Amino acid sequence: MSFISIIEKKKNKIELSEEEINFLIEGFLSSSIKDYQMSSFLMVVYFLGLTDKELFYFTKAMVNSGSVYKLKDIIGPIADKHSTGGVGDKTSLIYGPLVAKFGVKVAKISGRGLGKTGGTIDKLESCTGWTSELTESEFINNINNVGISIIGQSNEIVPADKLLYALRDVCGSVNSIPLIASSIMSKKLAIRTTSIVLDVKVGKGAFMENIEDALILANKMIIIGKHYNRDVSVMLTNMDYPLGNAIGNALEVKEAWDTLNGNGPKDLEEISILAAAITLLDNNIFDDIEVAKLNLRKVINDKSAAYLLKDFVENQNGDFNKIINFDQYFKTKFEIEIRANDDGYLVYESDKFGYLSMNLGAGRKTKKDIIDYSAGIKLHKSSGEFVKNGDLLFTMYTNINNVHQFNKMAASCFKIVKQNNNEKLVLKVISKHYNL
Amino acid sequence: MSFISIIEKKKNKIELSEEEINFLIEGFLSSSIKDYQMSSFLMVVYFLGLTDKELFYFTKAMVNSGSVYKLKDIIGPIADKHSTGGVGDKTSLIYGPLVAKFGVKVAKISGRGLGKTGGTIDKLESCTGWTSELTESEFINNINNVGISIIGQSNEIVPADKLLYALRDVCGSVNSIPLIASSIMSKKLAIRTTSIVLDVKVGKGAFMENIEDALILANKMIIIGKHYNRDVSVMLTNMDYPLGNAIGNALEVKEAWDTLNGNGPKDLEEISILAAAITLLDNNIFDDIEVAKLNLRKVINDKSAAYLLKDFVENQNGDFNKIINFDQYFKTKFEIEIRANDDGYLVYESDKFGYLSMNLGAGRKTKKDIIDYSAGIKLHKSSGEFVKNGDLLFTMYTNINNVHQFNKMAASCFKIVKQNNNEKLVLKVISKHYNL
Repeated sequence: MSFISIIEKKKNKIELSEEEINFLIEGFLSSSIKDYQMSSFLMVVYFLGLTDKELFYFTKAMVNSGSVYKLKDIIGPIADKHSTGGVGDKTSLIYGPLVAKFGVKVAKISGRGLGKTGGTIDKLESCTGWTSELTESEFINNINNVGISIIGQSNEIVPADKLLYALRDVCGSVNSIPLIASSIMSKKLAIRTTSIVLDVKVGKGAFMENIEDALILANKMIIIGKHYNRDVSVMLTNMDYPLGNAIGNALEVKEAWDTLNGNGPKDLEEISILAAAITLLDNNIFDDIEVAKLNLRKVINDKSAAYLLKDFVENQNGDFNKIINFDQYFKTKFEIEIRANDDGYLVYESDKFGYLSMNLGAGRKTKKDIIDYSAGIKLHKSSGEFVKNGDLLFTMYTNINNVHQFNKMAASCFKIVKQNNNEKLVLKVISKHYNL
Repeated sequence: MSFISIIEKKKNKIELSEEEINFLIEGFLSSSIKDYQMSSFLMVVYFLGLTDKELFYFTKAMVNSGSVYKLKDIIGPIADKHSTGGVGDKTSLIYGPLVAKFGVKVAKISGRGLGKTGGTIDKLESCTGWTSELTESEFINNINNVGISIIGQSNEIVPADKLLYALRDVCGSVNSIPLIASSIMSKKLAIRTTSIVLDVKVGKGAFMENIEDALILANKMIIIGKHYNRDVSVMLTNMDYPLGNAIGNALEVKEAWDTLNGNGPKDLEEISILAAAITLLDNNIFDDIEVAKLNLRKVINDKSAAYLLKDFVENQNGDFNKIINFDQYFKTKFEIEIRANDDGYLVYESDKFGYLSMNLGAGRKTKKDIIDYSAGIKLHKSSGEFVKNGDLLFTMYTNINNVHQFNKMAASCFKIVKQNNNEKLVLKVISKHYNL
């Protein structure tokens, strides 16, 4: 077996064996297969895809590249939820307390943001002291005590993914459906939860720009899950516009808290309740989606789930009072208001907001950049809403003195059009207990 | 401009500009574009090809990566001949003296062998003392004095090709027609000859396994030549079986000498005369292919061209007497005879002979291996010939004591079949003055 024989076989569209795929991944990890060879192979996969079997072996080899958290000492059902990345997507922070309230534990690995996309770890770090660096036993203890724990991507868990992703990122092989599927699923499978719900974002600036590709990705991930005997539920949701009204780290944690207290934007509440309801069905807490949703709305309306967010943050050493007393702690030097320049229906562009937020200080251009937790954007009008000339659309918060540039960027984040092109928020749900 | 924007553009099938292609090649040479990025790009080219414009810019960027030998101080027409690599292919050694005899100078850069393929430089080095390391002015002086000079690939000439080829070799992107075309043509264009004849080998074990692909490659190289205002003639010739009867370094120089003295195998003589005739037409020495061939046969029959090979070798410090008194100088410890095991028509497999010859000591498995100039194979029967059980087919010459293994390998080099599947030697010629 050699790298050349394997890549030639794949180029000739002959299915690779498990042994050959292990040879690739293990060779890459041990450096006997070089990065310039692996990047070539990844480009072959971009063009030819992977068969279902190859994709399973590839994902399995990635899972086996590191530790697997078996979570044996956790009592009761354990849920994981993952979003393929959206602007303003703080759903996990609302979802966690909601399902935990019904006895489903949440064990989750999250990432940091890069470029236009934010990361859950960054958002939570706006609660000073909050740490994602827990040992496996601390992780398990936290889950048993509060019902929720979130840790950062460690070198122990799926190290192959970290290396492969970094390579794809600089080599032009990010937008490959099987590689996205294996990257997501390897991280989900390395933690033995009882249910997985995946929120696949669809739209401009999302990995999946159209519903056809998103459906292929969804089905690939479901198939990988089946090979592992794990039920995977997938929701396809619209990411043409930002989710909720807040973009930026502390702003998003605050919006999650508001939503759990019944004061959140409707789109964010809808997505959070849907993801939570699917998880409650998957873990047999309810057997009807409407009943599940009704019960979830109850624990929002009576504010009984909200405090689980506070407990979870404090349990990982975060100062949640900064969120509760937001205005006192998160002030920026500049607050720049953007107003409508016409009458008509508002159209937001989520990825441009992502880049704007990054430039305001809320994100990283490179891995080394330091985040300004106060920076970000607050939307006062939503995409699709009818606005009048002069209406306040959104406010930018920043400590960087560059108002002219920010105004210019802000102008490209929205259009005002004559025809309302109302888009659905939830495009599709594929799940064992509920389909839409 | 960035690597990612360029590779994404190409992935989306949008034609790259000259500026973008220069950015890639120059970036790769200066290491601002990494090998793992270039290998990804090369795999994109494998799948999507290059447009004629892209291919010209790519080749031009390669040519411009190093020195160009303008050969201004050479009087009269200058020819170059190149073969895409075949087993037993010593045509250049016969072609050179033939065209030089008619006043067309030969200025050629040759390579060393690796794997199953031999290299002209290695063959000539069997004449002890022969050197391919000449300065540009020594090269020009030799051409003016003897009419022929051959030098080795230097780091000065097309350094981009050396780096790109090495990368393709370990990354599975060797068999890409535009990449083969640009690799060959960049080296031809870096030496300003007045004519170029390319012998594209077709068959099992050649780069081009079928005539369709070989024609595409031929046309790509002709188009690149046109952009440079250089006429390129292409012959497509069969490489299902070895060319001539000798495989191995000194054995092949001896066979070239024999052929120039009228005692060579017919297939080798035919190919050599055809390549030389095309060159004589391209340089207006004759205007009819049959007249050219007739005159070329004359200088073989009267042995007047043969001594140009000797002069050329001696002029680059080689001891040609070793070739003339072959039996005295090139003895091996083992001579292993292989005989027919059935009656029928003989079918040789050229690439298997290439590997066998390498194993006998005539070639390199890795770049560091040292060549045994005496080792090789002598064919006593040709592919397509009717043989009887017990007939002597070929003899292996080696200094390695491994008879059992060599016998085993030899058995896989041929088949004896009931039906004669006579294949044409010259499949096609595309040239300004003559087409077949």
